[in-house]
Amino acid sequence: MELLRTHIGRSLRASRNSQGRTLREVARQARVSLGYLSEVERGQKEASSELLNSICQALDVELSTVLNDVAHELVSCELNSRDAVKLTVVDAA
Amino acid sequence: MELLRTHIGRSLRASRNSQGRTLREVARQARVSLGYLSEVERGQKEASSELLNSICQALDVELSTVLNDVAHELVSCELNSRDAVKLTVVDAA
Repeated sequence: MELLRTHIGRSLRASRNSQGRTLREVARQARVSLGYLSEVERGQKEASSELLNSICQALDVELSTVLNDVAHELVSCELNSRDAVKLTVVDAA
Repeated sequence: MELLRTHIGRSLRASRNSQGRTLREVARQARVSLGYLSEVERGQKEASSELLNSICQALDVELSTVLNDVAHELVSCELNSRDAVKLTVVDAA
């Protein structure tokens, strides 16, 4: 099952990479530790809502933009997962 | 500033209310405590990604649907907040 923190992390990392910025720069601007930001980006830590806002501000992206990205990615994953279930049912028939 | 957990909580509560279900029923089905679900709905606790999935399953809503709701609400809040800034600038001019 898809986890929200995995997709939020991917979206944040994609924004940072598209700006050619380092973890260190963004972490400093967001006032979070480099380790924390790295774990959030890799989906290994749940970002608190407050720190998620700080990271979005440091990246100059709206939280709504991150969530739209995440919702779109999740829809694709949900559709793929339904297709996989259908294929299993067809295989079993 | 808008907090993700506030909006996720509102969306989950709206789904539960639209189904006419109690906190107790949904909490039992999602295998979370009633207090935890109540705090998540009121935006007082960050739901872990795993428990958010359990709550969505118990409500029979896709996580992507919840996030789409949240993204839409956030866009409205962000636009209102920009309008408020503009008004302040106009007032100050």
